[in-house]
Amino acid sequence: MNRRRRIYEGKAKILYEGPEPGTLIQHFKDDATAFNAKKHQIVDGKGVLNNRISEYIFNNLNDMGIPTHFIRRLNMREQLIREVEIIPLEVVVRNVAAGSLSKRLGIDEGTPLPRSIIEFYYKNDELDDPMVSEEHITAFGWATPQEMDDIMSLAIRVNDFLSGLFLGVGIRLVDFKMECGRLFENDMMRIVVADEISPDSCRLWDMTSNEKLDKDRFRRDLGGLLEAYQEVARRLGLLNSNERVTGTGPVLVQ
Amino acid sequence: MNRRRRIYEGKAKILYEGPEPGTLIQHFKDDATAFNAKKHQIVDGKGVLNNRISEYIFNNLNDMGIPTHFIRRLNMREQLIREVEIIPLEVVVRNVAAGSLSKRLGIDEGTPLPRSIIEFYYKNDELDDPMVSEEHITAFGWATPQEMDDIMSLAIRVNDFLSGLFLGVGIRLVDFKMECGRLFENDMMRIVVADEISPDSCRLWDMTSNEKLDKDRFRRDLGGLLEAYQEVARRLGLLNSNERVTGTGPVLVQ
Repeated sequence: MNRRRRIYEGKAKILYEGPEPGTLIQHFKDDATAFNAKKHQIVDGKGVLNNRISEYIFNNLNDMGIPTHFIRRLNMREQLIREVEIIPLEVVVRNVAAGSLSKRLGIDEGTPLPRSIIEFYYKNDELDDPMVSEEHITAFGWATPQEMDDIMSLAIRVNDFLSGLFLGVGIRLVDFKMECGRLFENDMMRIVVADEISPDSCRLWDMTSNEKLDKDRFRRDLGGLLEAYQEVARRLGLLNSNERVTGTGPVLVQ
Repeated sequence: MNRRRRIYEGKAKILYEGPEPGTLIQHFKDDATAFNAKKHQIVDGKGVLNNRISEYIFNNLNDMGIPTHFIRRLNMREQLIREVEIIPLEVVVRNVAAGSLSKRLGIDEGTPLPRSIIEFYYKNDELDDPMVSEEHITAFGWATPQEMDDIMSLAIRVNDFLSGLFLGVGIRLVDFKMECGRLFENDMMRIVVADEISPDSCRLWDMTSNEKLDKDRFRRDLGGLLEAYQEVARRLGLLNSNERVTGTGPVLVQ
């Protein structure tokens, strides 16, 4: 099975050559990392949950005409995606102050923002993903002004959809990170949503208790990471109440 | 003389009530500070030089139709300015990589940038002036999108003028910081350049030797801060070659 060529290995995922030209296989690992991988742990089953949750979100985005790299889920840990040229930016959309924004701007966590704010971070582990603005991005050619317009439009649409989706299941979308890529097809290029969208890349707070249902449980040593991700999957209807997730997939609770 | 009301005291300047409504007196101190005033020193005569250099630059900006708060110099340490509502941003224009940009983005100091880059820092000592983007600025209402357009236009014009001015006297304008304010006049509001422009707020490198003629001499313990500022004033024709500046003004070298 692992004869296939490995294209890239990141902190939480591996990309393999796909079955056809222009496709890749995205494999979700169980590795939880934070603070540029200075903190690391294996959480059995996390990859299974993120694969399933990300599939659900990307399928819905595709259906709504928000273009993504996603084709279909293949198995518990893998999905088939279109090969794109990743734009080296983390696009962060924030609805409520939390994390680095709270710290940098001195705004209490949980304060609703006057409007959604889009931030960009330059993907570079050596530099700890520094925040950058459109000025840096267009000056250094990481994306063109036209591409930035597309990226911001996508970011707003994804935020609108995710805010509604999570609101419907009693979860506040505090913020999320997405990545974009250039998809070349029929002599055309368009910007699509890439990577994954999962509790690894979102801040999700229970609407009534404010309980964190995302990777902050790991970053801040709150425990119960897998349980939180399972809760998100359950609320989205992706896991039955009598199931839990293990390293090989969902099993019935005894 | 000091009966007049003090409006504000900053790290390097004091603002006093002016002789007429809508005016202020901007007084230049000899304090050199860096790293949010964690480093501090008195440099006799620095205020005299900055007052003179900033007068020269602002007069020229006014003459070119680039609106500023500057009216006229009053004496060795003071200038008369229009009262404006300061926008809480440090507007930084960079032509060559240096300082925090080099560090954050891993670009060697001295590398010419592909194009001039405008950055914004939120003026807040408690938060150490964090970098922000137009997204934060407009979301939190520090400036409107229309004001940001005006600020960026002013920043580009000032950069063009200063780049030319310093080029003409053998100095490379690596970067500079400016501040803007809202000037209310005849029921109209317009954005003007405020604060000061001096070797305290610019990076100025000798074109041939790359010798630093700016506040980095103080930040980096290179010594010769006053001598460097005097050299800038001399090249701009503001100080004769047989003069040096003391705490009370220029004196003939014996």
